[in-house]
Formats: sequence, structure tokens, C-alpha cells
Amino acid sequence: MSLLVIGSVAFDAVETPFGKTEKMLGGSASHFSLSASFFTDVRIVGVVGGDFSDTEQQVFDAHQINTNDLERVPEGKTFRWFGRYDYDLNVAHTLDTQLNVFADFQPKVSAESKNARLVFLGNIQPDLQRGVREQIPNAELVALDTMNLWIDVARESLIRTIEGVDVVVINDAEARQLTAIPNLIKAARTILSWGPKALIVKRGEYGAALFTSDSYFAIPAYPLESVFDPTGAGDTFAGGFMGYLASQKNLDDAAMRRAMIFGSVMASFNVEEFGTARVERLTHDEINQRFRTFKQMTHFEEIPFERTARAIE
Amino acid sequence: MSLLVIGSVAFDAVETPFGKTEKMLGGSASHFSLSASFFTDVRIVGVVGGDFSDTEQQVFDAHQINTNDLERVPEGKTFRWFGRYDYDLNVAHTLDTQLNVFADFQPKVSAESKNARLVFLGNIQPDLQRGVREQIPNAELVALDTMNLWIDVARESLIRTIEGVDVVVINDAEARQLTAIPNLIKAARTILSWGPKALIVKRGEYGAALFTSDSYFAIPAYPLESVFDPTGAGDTFAGGFMGYLASQKNLDDAAMRRAMIFGSVMASFNVEEFGTARVERLTHDEINQRFRTFKQMTHFEEIPFERTARAIE
Repeated sequence: MSLLVIGSVAFDAVETPFGKTEKMLGGSASHFSLSASFFTDVRIVGVVGGDFSDTEQQVFDAHQINTNDLERVPEGKTFRWFGRYDYDLNVAHTLDTQLNVFADFQPKVSAESKNARLVFLGNIQPDLQRGVREQIPNAELVALDTMNLWIDVARESLIRTIEGVDVVVINDAEARQLTAIPNLIKAARTILSWGPKALIVKRGEYGAALFTSDSYFAIPAYPLESVFDPTGAGDTFAGGFMGYLASQKNLDDAAMRRAMIFGSVMASFNVEEFGTARVERLTHDEINQRFRTFKQMTHFEEIPFERTARAIE
Repeated sequence: MSLLVIGSVAFDAVETPFGKTEKMLGGSASHFSLSASFFTDVRIVGVVGGDFSDTEQQVFDAHQINTNDLERVPEGKTFRWFGRYDYDLNVAHTLDTQLNVFADFQPKVSAESKNARLVFLGNIQPDLQRGVREQIPNAELVALDTMNLWIDVARESLIRTIEGVDVVVINDAEARQLTAIPNLIKAARTILSWGPKALIVKRGEYGAALFTSDSYFAIPAYPLESVFDPTGAGDTFAGGFMGYLASQKNLDDAAMRRAMIFGSVMASFNVEEFGTARVERLTHDEINQRFRTFKQMTHFEEIPFERTARAIE
């Protein structure tokens, strides 16, 4: 088995300036696995309630996402998130959160799940993330996402968890908050000093950056004239990144760089429609086309300046 | 003559969390010309007062910057700017502005200046910019910078001025304000529809983007662990961009892309010390080294995803 994700499967209700939806498939594990499924076999560890219906299950099935470890609590309700975005689509306003069955989520890592080559610890309580990580000691690469809440209420536990993973995936505000260092480059060096071999900093409309001990890689975001619903963009990025890596033999710097591009490509599609709608019907041709556009929009010729060029005047 | 800049020559007093200086050479034309001088011959149209001394003149002379059109008003005082930066170095707080001789600045474009192949209209009142532009109808490429003040008080005049130039160089907040369009990509298309063939959007620590009618190019900023004084970074970027272009025969998209990198390289040096100190003692080797680093930090292999790669599992 290639890739395992631990995270939330949820119903989202989202309002944006461009429309609203009452109830759609959401949650970190949903967005992640759907995105990763274009590149590799992926399996979810999570929990849903009795209201999780065949309609949602069908989305996973249609993309060969393994849900054997998606726990069902028939008498419980699925995690629900209610959010709103104003014209500044970078900021999500949470209107209501109903944790429901997710409140007591204890990830159960089956024997099969323990064979995962790559693991993504979605944004849940850091103690739980660490518990999962310790149950899969032989994974080749483990990545972790988190959020400002855990930096506020469980910083020490989060740092211990970060010490035990290979890749940290966070946004720039979180990197600054986590380290209390305003300069992002210094903040990144500090996080790497805790143990991970790579740090990915997501910058929303400004793109993303990959820090390792001896390399720095930074890319812009795909230029979109209209962003419809940014919910799940970060997890879709992570799904593309980890899914692509899982398809590669060597998880070296060159592969991670390409994975950054595929992650950005997947995120750029995700935000074009509500929820998972756009990614659900993506094709590999569309993905590769946008991958090539990334190359075009970042390419320049490596011709250093020659003083003698002044002679042309 | 290759490159002409119209703009301010000033004395800056700057406080940052890392230090302060009472009086140093500043102003858009100073930062621009110093940066451009590493790539081409550059000439300033501007005005200074009787307090402009040999010490400051020496900076221009040492870099072969032509100041024949730098007007001197012996009984007047040079433009002074007093500013402060807090830990968020992206935001300049103006403590005081003393326009002095700059208040009545009427750019005088000499016969020699009219031969300029490239022209940069630094951030001054848009009517004045347009007046200069009209006096140099044969320039091969004219670029313009502006600021939020002119968008507030002289928007119509600014748009008329933009209609007559080839390249607009502004930051992302200004692009949004100028067009009243929150989405940057749409805002950029709107500005291009007014006439310019290229728009450069500066994004501070997030890098810069180049929009043309049929191409998009975006680059990150050079990753700096400490930014000491951001004053003049935008003009230093523009100086590197225009100076490099002036050294090239073909001002095509490929040259503009490399010029974006050289502009970013120059700006990255500028912010490392107060005022013009770092750029004054730069070498071409240092510039080219950072140019190559930009290539390394943006490079990835163009290998599209192949479904068959899944077979490796």
C-alpha cells in the first residue's frame, strides 16, 4: 500500500461572495485522498456518522480510495463545518463547528495501514498524530499538517510530534507563530532544526516554498482569474504532493520539487468550484497541461550579465 | 545614451528595529540609477538643494551616473523623508516629508536626455510624468512607477499617463486599488487593456510577477534571513530591470524575464544595509552569483506524470 492519510471526513456548508452550499463532502482526509488518488493508491483512516451516505462513499469508490479504515458510528453524526469567505478569499470565517463523532476520534491503524510507504498526518490533535506516527515506524516518509489552534493549545506536544516526522506542511503565518520568529527564512531554519528533513510553507495566492537543509525551492501559485471556494486547497495541495511522491522511486529533492508543482496544480483546480466538484472530474491530461504551464511561467534563461554586453550601445 | 530616470534625489532618515540613520542618500532616482549603473549608462533628471554635497555627488560619480540634468537650487533644500519600519518591514510609516525643492520640480529634459533609448518615470505626479514622456517620443521603451497617493488624488491623469507608456511597475495593493478589482490577475488584465505591453507587479517578500498580453512570469523573492532597511527596494528593482534591459539588443519576453531576475537580485542586496550602502560596493560577480541562485531555487524538471509510474509499487 502506497499512501495513508489520517484526518477528518466532514460535511461542509460554505458561503462565498459567489454562492453557497448547504452540505457537501469536505474534511482534510477527503480533499487529500481525492487529490492523491490521481497519482497513487490511497487509504483513509478516519471516522464518519450514520448520516454518511452512499452518495459520499461513491466519491471515494469512484477514485479507488480505500475506506476500509474509515470507521462508521451509525448512531453518531459526521463532523460538520460551517464557514464563510468574504472577498478576501484568503481568510476563512468559521461560523460553526460540530465535531460530532470526530470529538472522540481515536485513529485505529490496521495491520494493512501499517504497511503504508508514505503517511500524511492531517490536521488533528498533535498527540493523536504522534500516536499514529509511532505505530508506523517503517514508513519511508511521514508528513504532517497542523493549524493555529494546536500551536495555541498544544505547542509542546506539536513540537514533539514534528521532531518525529520527515516533512512539515504549514502556512507562513503558522510557521511564524510556531517559532515566534517574524522572518520566514529564519523560522523555517528553526523548524528544520527540530528534526524534519523538509518544510513546506504554503502562501496561498503567493505560492509555496520548500525548505531543506541544503536547498530552497519557491514557486508562484497558478494564476486564477476567479477563485470560487478555497476550502480544502491546503489538503488538496498536500494530496497532490504526497500522491505524486508515492508514485516515485526516489524521494529526493528533484522529486519533491516536481511534487510541489503537482500539489499546486491540484490546489488550483480545487478552488475553481465548490468542495470537491472540480477535482472529482479532473483528467490526467488537464493535470499535465497545468504542470507544463507552471514550467512556462517560471522559466528563464540562465545567462549571467556580461560587462562586454554594454558594447552594443 | 541608454537609460534616463526622472525622479527624486533625497535625504532619508530611517528608523528600523535594527538601527537608525539621520541622513543618507535616498530618493527614487538615486536608488534606481545606482542599481542600473551596474548594467548600463544612466542619466538622472531631478533636483537637489544647496545642502547636496560632494559626498553624495561622489556616489553618483563613482558609478559613472550622469548628473548633468540634476538641477541644483543653491538657496533651496533637498527633499527629505523621515520614515520608520516596525518588525513588519513591509510597511513604511512616514514620520515626516519635507518636499523642499522637490515641491516645485519641473523636469527639464535636455537635448541629450531626449536621446535616451529607455526611460524610467519614477514616482512623481502623473502630469509631470506624462509631460516628460511626450518630450521623448522616440524612446524604445518607457516604464512608469507610481504610488497610492496618485491613485487617490490623480487617478484619471495617472490612467492617461499609463496609456502612453510601455511598462507599468507597481505593487499588488496599488494594482488592486488602481482598478478596484480584488483579483490580481483580472486587475492586471485591466491595466494591460489600457495600453502598456507589460505590467510588473512587485509583491515584496513574495517576489514579483510580469504580465504581458500572452505570457505570465512569476518569481519568488531572494530568501533573506535578515532584512535591514527596505527603503528603495522597489526603485532598486526597477533600476536592475531597466538597466539590464538597456544592455540588451532585443527587449523581448525572454530579456524581460531575465531583467526581472536581475531586478530582484539588486533589490535583495539593497535591503541588506541602510540606504545605498550595500549596492554601492556590489560587484558583478556577486550579482551573477545571486542570479544563478535564482535559477537553482526555481528550477524543476519538466516530467509530466505518467499513469504507468504507478506500476513501480
